[in-house]
Amino acid sequence: MEKRIRVPEPTIARLATYFRCLADLSDQEVGVVSSEEIAFRAGVKASQVRKDLSYFGEFGVQGLGYPVPRLLDRVASILQLDQQHRVALVGAGNLGTALAGFPGFARWNFHILWIFDSSPAKVGQEINKITVEPTSSLPRSLAADLGILAVPGPAAKDVAQLLVDSGVTALLNFTGAHLHLGSKVSVRNVDLTHELAILAYHARRPDPTPES
Amino acid sequence: MEKRIRVPEPTIARLATYFRCLADLSDQEVGVVSSEEIAFRAGVKASQVRKDLSYFGEFGVQGLGYPVPRLLDRVASILQLDQQHRVALVGAGNLGTALAGFPGFARWNFHILWIFDSSPAKVGQEINKITVEPTSSLPRSLAADLGILAVPGPAAKDVAQLLVDSGVTALLNFTGAHLHLGSKVSVRNVDLTHELAILAYHARRPDPTPES
Repeated sequence: MEKRIRVPEPTIARLATYFRCLADLSDQEVGVVSSEEIAFRAGVKASQVRKDLSYFGEFGVQGLGYPVPRLLDRVASILQLDQQHRVALVGAGNLGTALAGFPGFARWNFHILWIFDSSPAKVGQEINKITVEPTSSLPRSLAADLGILAVPGPAAKDVAQLLVDSGVTALLNFTGAHLHLGSKVSVRNVDLTHELAILAYHARRPDPTPES
Repeated sequence: MEKRIRVPEPTIARLATYFRCLADLSDQEVGVVSSEEIAFRAGVKASQVRKDLSYFGEFGVQGLGYPVPRLLDRVASILQLDQQHRVALVGAGNLGTALAGFPGFARWNFHILWIFDSSPAKVGQEINKITVEPTSSLPRSLAADLGILAVPGPAAKDVAQLLVDSGVTALLNFTGAHLHLGSKVSVRNVDLTHELAILAYHARRPDPTPES
């Protein structure tokens, strides 16, 4: 593995977006792409794309654009998407089941290899070829580098600690709970009401009703 | 409804976070809160909290802090969370079912009132007391202001247009597809692989294996 470059968080988030755009272009067998085209697909300014990519060395050819396969490989390497990621999922309800079967994960080298649930009705069931294990079997040494929390909010803190004690250093948190797990653990919060609340500001009421 | 204030998008996103923190404080019957406490809960700097809130007038009392109930009401009003939002959901798979039953939505005044699916096996089923209708019944005039797309990626564009043609002006998009629906429609993309990709950069490999 090459030497890691430290990159600011907003750049990382945009690189992840560029990665998907480049993967789509690669699927379409596009050989070269302009910063304007990446920018349009990613929903940012072309100058931002050029700035972000120049951070990692010279990729573009003046007047031609960026070679798609080389840039895709490089972005994947920066994000560590060229490596297999082993994921432990806790929570086998509808959301966990949706995540376990999500087809996009494998393409990005994410493999859910463990599923845990605290409900005896779930334990022993197979979801996407993985047998659900009891959450009470944690903590134990899991060779997982990523964890997904899809449990009810009140259980979030305890379950997160079980995953951290099992060696997981990065958590995707769907519970809506704020987790403070120390500086060695990275957490990304996916808060569905939060996204809807942002949309609510923009929504136009189609049909004003007396009670609103 | 009071006159709308135009607010930059990153401020809106932070206000939605503050709203949740304030709602939690209100549940705990906390009467007054400092900008430092809001900042800690929201994961931002206290100076950012003060700057964001000063945008909407003076709330804080020097040396005392912010009155929780008044600030909560004001933030809710700015975000339009003091109004009922009527939501149409398309896609009744595991993800759609998880969203339909998500307990957090009602608390924030989001009510999923329509569920659509294209599969005859789903149509007619009840999910959270809503009967699934065929997607082919769209477009028709829905008194919905928000739409949620939880369909497979290839169907996203067509289904989004059906919702827009049915009067929906704000869409929460789980499909991973990039939607370009014009300036009158707001879209928030929830891309689960994107969040994992950002985490992948931070993950530490617990157990280097020869194949990786």
